[in-house]
Amino acid sequence: MSSSFGTLFRVTTYGESHGAGVGVVVDGCPPGLEISLEEIQQELDRRRPGQSGLVSQRKESDRVEILSGISPEGKTLGTPIAMLVRNEDARSVDYEEMRHKFRPSHADFTTHMKYGVRDWRGGGRSSARETVGRVAAGAIAQKLLREIWGVEVVAYVQSVQDIATDWSDWPDRSEIDKTPVRCPDPEVAARMIALIEGVRKQGDTVGGVVACLVRGVPAGWGEPVFDKLEADLAKAVMSLPASKGFEIGSGFAGTLLKGSEHNDAMRSSIPPSFVRGARGELESGVDDSPLTPLTSEGGTGVHTTTNNSGGIQGGISNGMPITLRVAFKPVSTIMMEQDTVDENYENTTIKGKGRHDPCVLPRAVPMVEAMVSLVLADHALRQRALMGS
Amino acid sequence: MSSSFGTLFRVTTYGESHGAGVGVVVDGCPPGLEISLEEIQQELDRRRPGQSGLVSQRKESDRVEILSGISPEGKTLGTPIAMLVRNEDARSVDYEEMRHKFRPSHADFTTHMKYGVRDWRGGGRSSARETVGRVAAGAIAQKLLREIWGVEVVAYVQSVQDIATDWSDWPDRSEIDKTPVRCPDPEVAARMIALIEGVRKQGDTVGGVVACLVRGVPAGWGEPVFDKLEADLAKAVMSLPASKGFEIGSGFAGTLLKGSEHNDAMRSSIPPSFVRGARGELESGVDDSPLTPLTSEGGTGVHTTTNNSGGIQGGISNGMPITLRVAFKPVSTIMMEQDTVDENYENTTIKGKGRHDPCVLPRAVPMVEAMVSLVLADHALRQRALMGS
Amino acid sequence: MSSSFGTLFRVTTYGESHGAGVGVVVDGCPPGLEISLEEIQQELDRRRPGQSGLVSQRKESDRVEILSGISPEGKTLGTPIAMLVRNEDARSVDYEEMRHKFRPSHADFTTHMKYGVRDWRGGGRSSARETVGRVAAGAIAQKLLREIWGVEVVAYVQSVQDIATDWSDWPDRSEIDKTPVRCPDPEVAARMIALIEGVRKQGDTVGGVVACLVRGVPAGWGEPVFDKLEADLAKAVMSLPASKGFEIGSGFAGTLLKGSEHNDAMRSSIPPSFVRGARGELESGVDDSPLTPLTSEGGTGVHTTTNNSGGIQGGISNGMPITLRVAFKPVSTIMMEQDTVDENYENTTIKGKGRHDPCVLPRAVPMVEAMVSLVLADHALRQRALMGS
Amino acid sequence: MSSSFGTLFRVTTYGESHGAGVGVVVDGCPPGLEISLEEIQQELDRRRPGQSGLVSQRKESDRVEILSGISPEGKTLGTPIAMLVRNEDARSVDYEEMRHKFRPSHADFTTHMKYGVRDWRGGGRSSARETVGRVAAGAIAQKLLREIWGVEVVAYVQSVQDIATDWSDWPDRSEIDKTPVRCPDPEVAARMIALIEGVRKQGDTVGGVVACLVRGVPAGWGEPVFDKLEADLAKAVMSLPASKGFEIGSGFAGTLLKGSEHNDAMRSSIPPSFVRGARGELESGVDDSPLTPLTSEGGTGVHTTTNNSGGIQGGISNGMPITLRVAFKPVSTIMMEQDTVDENYENTTIKGKGRHDPCVLPRAVPMVEAMVSLVLADHALRQRALMGS
Repeated sequence: MSSSFGTLFRVTTYGESHGAGVGVVVDGCPPGLEISLEEIQQELDRRRPGQSGLVSQRKESDRVEILSGISPEGKTLGTPIAMLVRNEDARSVDYEEMRHKFRPSHADFTTHMKYGVRDWRGGGRSSARETVGRVAAGAIAQKLLREIWGVEVVAYVQSVQDIATDWSDWPDRSEIDKTPVRCPDPEVAARMIALIEGVRKQGDTVGGVVACLVRGVPAGWGEPVFDKLEADLAKAVMSLPASKGFEIGSGFAGTLLKGSEHNDAMRSSIPPSFVRGARGELESGVDDSPLTPLTSEGGTGVHTTTNNSGGIQGGISNGMPITLRVAFKPVSTIMMEQDTVDENYENTTIKGKGRHDPCVLPRAVPMVEAMVSLVLADHALRQRALMGS
Repeated sequence: MSSSFGTLFRVTTYGESHGAGVGVVVDGCPPGLEISLEEIQQELDRRRPGQSGLVSQRKESDRVEILSGISPEGKTLGTPIAMLVRNEDARSVDYEEMRHKFRPSHADFTTHMKYGVRDWRGGGRSSARETVGRVAAGAIAQKLLREIWGVEVVAYVQSVQDIATDWSDWPDRSEIDKTPVRCPDPEVAARMIALIEGVRKQGDTVGGVVACLVRGVPAGWGEPVFDKLEADLAKAVMSLPASKGFEIGSGFAGTLLKGSEHNDAMRSSIPPSFVRGARGELESGVDDSPLTPLTSEGGTGVHTTTNNSGGIQGGISNGMPITLRVAFKPVSTIMMEQDTVDENYENTTIKGKGRHDPCVLPRAVPMVEAMVSLVLADHALRQRALMGS
Repeated sequence: MSSSFGTLFRVTTYGESHGAGVGVVVDGCPPGLEISLEEIQQELDRRRPGQSGLVSQRKESDRVEILSGISPEGKTLGTPIAMLVRNEDARSVDYEEMRHKFRPSHADFTTHMKYGVRDWRGGGRSSARETVGRVAAGAIAQKLLREIWGVEVVAYVQSVQDIATDWSDWPDRSEIDKTPVRCPDPEVAARMIALIEGVRKQGDTVGGVVACLVRGVPAGWGEPVFDKLEADLAKAVMSLPASKGFEIGSGFAGTLLKGSEHNDAMRSSIPPSFVRGARGELESGVDDSPLTPLTSEGGTGVHTTTNNSGGIQGGISNGMPITLRVAFKPVSTIMMEQDTVDENYENTTIKGKGRHDPCVLPRAVPMVEAMVSLVLADHALRQRALMGS
Repeated sequence: MSSSFGTLFRVTTYGESHGAGVGVVVDGCPPGLEISLEEIQQELDRRRPGQSGLVSQRKESDRVEILSGISPEGKTLGTPIAMLVRNEDARSVDYEEMRHKFRPSHADFTTHMKYGVRDWRGGGRSSARETVGRVAAGAIAQKLLREIWGVEVVAYVQSVQDIATDWSDWPDRSEIDKTPVRCPDPEVAARMIALIEGVRKQGDTVGGVVACLVRGVPAGWGEPVFDKLEADLAKAVMSLPASKGFEIGSGFAGTLLKGSEHNDAMRSSIPPSFVRGARGELESGVDDSPLTPLTSEGGTGVHTTTNNSGGIQGGISNGMPITLRVAFKPVSTIMMEQDTVDENYENTTIKGKGRHDPCVLPRAVPMVEAMVSLVLADHALRQRALMGS
């Protein structure tokens, strides 16, 4: 079950980096949802290599084919939606050295130890190419969330190495996609781009943080014990390649506050400040926020005056925006010589070849959105099963 | 399925804070494991309220009864192990105010919105009392891991608010349990205790960070895609009450390094430094570490010279110690007046009553150990299913 | 996961025959359902040994205790409902011989081969006593089905050895429970009772068939592929001790018909004959049937003029009554000497002792109802998740 | 999760009858298994329409493409194995009438009631074409079972309408495939063929029974409670299109025996008669049977002198051959006018068009083998997880 995710909205991905193709089966999507090939392709294009100078130059058009589950008229049938993207530009020759040597901080050694065999070409199953299926499935989940519940999921690059934005408005996707680095703050984005380009020239790589915000989730999604909404979100994004940390709401910085400072006071009928977090970078405090949490769905008019909870309390959404952050390490493949061992467990060195990302962050944005959407679609259906609507 | 966790080593907890009792069913534990009531009780005693002045004074003896799955001779039968702890000191009167008001940053409001009904007495299902079942199950998982694979799981309090230890040796449980705050560093522990006692007098609360280390995990546990070992660990600990963040290995600090700094070089046959992380607090670098990763299990003699990966690469263990950190927010129940709303969604105030923890950290230590052990036992069995040993 | 059943309405049973007790955790029951201890106890009393001279004389009062999940006011909370029945009259001395010998056609040998260890006292986990938890959970599922969807599940003994009833009306539970053999046909019931009593005197046992009918299921429950409604029903009842066969609708007899005879013609707005099956025993043909399938729920007024489909077509309910049959073999424990082997795999003989059922059928009736109800409750929630109501 | 099956050896099928294609993802197959495209294709060819005059004349070459999970050298990688078969000869025009009318005893009406929408072309997801994915996956499961455990699964047509064979030897697949009807008894096969051809001319259809035998399963596979081996087998085959009944071992006929007749006596070290069942048709009694149950695997030399248990006791295999039977109804599509209703729920008639099977039995044989193999592969891995081998 290692390649499946979700309980009711359930996805199963397949495919190796240099095999015939990669894809996904989405099982459990309600029937009657209108979704076009273009809407799915659009998300894949945001994930695709070669889309800018900041990312891998592997040339994959990543054209998705829908094999089942969607009618000729473009509506989901309620049956499994299978999608396939063929691999095109698989230059296995670049990976010849990897056949016998383990790349440091990659999955080469661990795959070898787990399975005894491995598809060494391009990282095989551990390649970030596997996320094609996630992003395609996430596009459907996002559409479902938007159409039925009015939920919007948006992520952006909050920091690259030590360059960070303190963006506090709702970040529109159009602003985010304006720069190839996917940071809505133009001035900071320019500095991030310069940093990544400099690092690329050195053959080195950098990491950073992706922030994700969700609005429109009604109060009541999630579960009180193991399947807490934040727990499933944590699993979802920590299953992305290169992720090293997860925070919900105040996160680690919240440990520096006292309870009297951290608690989110509840108020009725007053426009909320929306993402005032413990960390300055998520702070807002603006009362003219366009967000109207709770009022639409629950009809309660209740909100919290701060949002250190990140929209989730006791594992269940409270109607406030959900805010989370994901740390991504610097990409492991560097164009520099490194110490490693070979398959005979003897010391040797290795130097990266091939077409790799100097920074995974820009392409991680649609991946985070996809994973968060998959979790929310699943919990939406679970809540519907429990309460009938 | 919200109250079940795990695929092959599967636990299901039940129970409300002020109901008849709380407990757990453990399904999938292999037969023939020797485990005594005392071993399980011992872990529960570490989680129990009233064990020191630093934690809640609720008087629960928390005596566990084994209902099934263990033979009179003290061996697991391979059948479900059901355990029950009766609730004793449930003073629901303390919670009378909660009947009609939602406590800020608690699960009261979200439970109400999710279910329409709720057991308001003591937080019901959302009480930390639910973790009794987790800790009892975790005791069995730990024993299994130790007996079959020689795996050791140990957690300790790394920081309380801004007081942090830079402990870098393997922390023995005997050292950790020497102080009620469960920090192995005696000098720092004393300062933590003073802080917590001061905060308690103010009616306030504090949070902090628990670190967890695991040694003895062979290379090859985990899965390459959604059920990455770090993803399942993240979900496990993020499902604990009050947790707000998770890091594996270098975590968020790893985003400040370049790839050339962050990559864990691989070497054969040289004693490793064991938990050199990006954050100073996890740094070690000592070559005379008592840990001998990989050599025992895989017999490869391979190690990494740093451990920014935290013992996991591409979702699969690499034989190095697993290192993770969990952020816990300050406890939400404070003895101070706070703004909130009542069940008619009208503004009001509330002030905590009852017996609560000024700091959840000391009791979170056995909870983290339990959840980490549950994940590892599950993946151990999954790997055995796949490879036959 | 061997002791869990269901996806959304999920039950986990635990307990050995001669351990501390047996029980169940029900996870996923919607909140707000009124259910009293008495309603659950009533079903357990129908399953209980000692209730008549036809069944085992083991003296178990089988008093159920609710440990969690139901409020003091008798409403489900949406949280796991844990229930416990203590074992009382466990006379392990009767089983001393079983300690070293395998009873033929029991699970003794196979349990030994599977686990290496076994609780030989009273059959341990393989005892029919395990079904206590199923029946308790089934009582909740039945209540839920009745309250929300108006579904009724009823089973009865259709045959004991070669004595069979051709009952064709809707069998009311009051009629069924009038005789200890649970056959609604009084004349046939008398003959069944005489047969069972005669067999008991010989120290022998008999089997038979339980029929189960369900009305009120709306069209649209079930799934089109692996989780077909009949597939889940088959698994459910074939997981009961001593079951050897399953039929839906026309069953094996349906293989004797041609398609033109077997197909269920569809008609609109005409009162249906309800359970006209290929087998005479399920035939009805009466147009004044009290059943009004489809009209209430789907509002379509569509019915089929025969019901060889047994209420399910392509894995999905069609609104007609669901009809199924389960074969139960004669009880394996007989008071006669039989060839067997001991734990050293040497030939020996064994003769049953203890208090056993000469015929499992009367007690199987509530077990079948329970399992069928668990499947239907699960699919009801799954359909609600998919379609929002 | 309606399109997934299995816990550890897990398959997910996708595809509509007249969509782009049908296929499957197999997740959890251990790495290192040699399996060629031809081995998989061979099984698909046995399922394929058009293979003889007895089955549907739809012209599908059913060429399978492996998209992932198998290395260029033909070894499984331990990653998901995705397979795709393109649809070729989809003559939707034949189904134009079905667009607005529900075919009796088909899934048309129930699909409509469940989803609101449906792909009416060729039955969409409910078409038997969906089983392409099952058979492809089953080919891998069979290879795994054979290579690691020496398990053999074989099925054959035991009866067509009232023409039945009393075949009692081990039926070799070569004998079974000698006739297009897949009955190993040549004389009976000839009569079956004549019957089917006669029925086809009338535009009618017939059903029958498939028997399945498994040898080589060691004692100890299966689970004692819900996931009993016979329960999972029942679900597996009852999820096949057109199946109406299931029997394990003595089945319904076993209800006619007394316990003293039905119990399978155990003996040590004596060559067993292998499938002596309650039904004459499965009876053997030959002591020179080539089967040597238990001796190879468990090394116990224990067998039973009869096999009414069908190789499973208390849900767990006992080392004897597993014997089961599946009833298939006559195909619903007939070339005769039938009463039905249209999508406005008004009475009308319909007459089958297109290319259909007059009898599903010959093609059901590889489907039953596939489903039985999937169950056994899953339980084999589960036992390995539990016991380490």
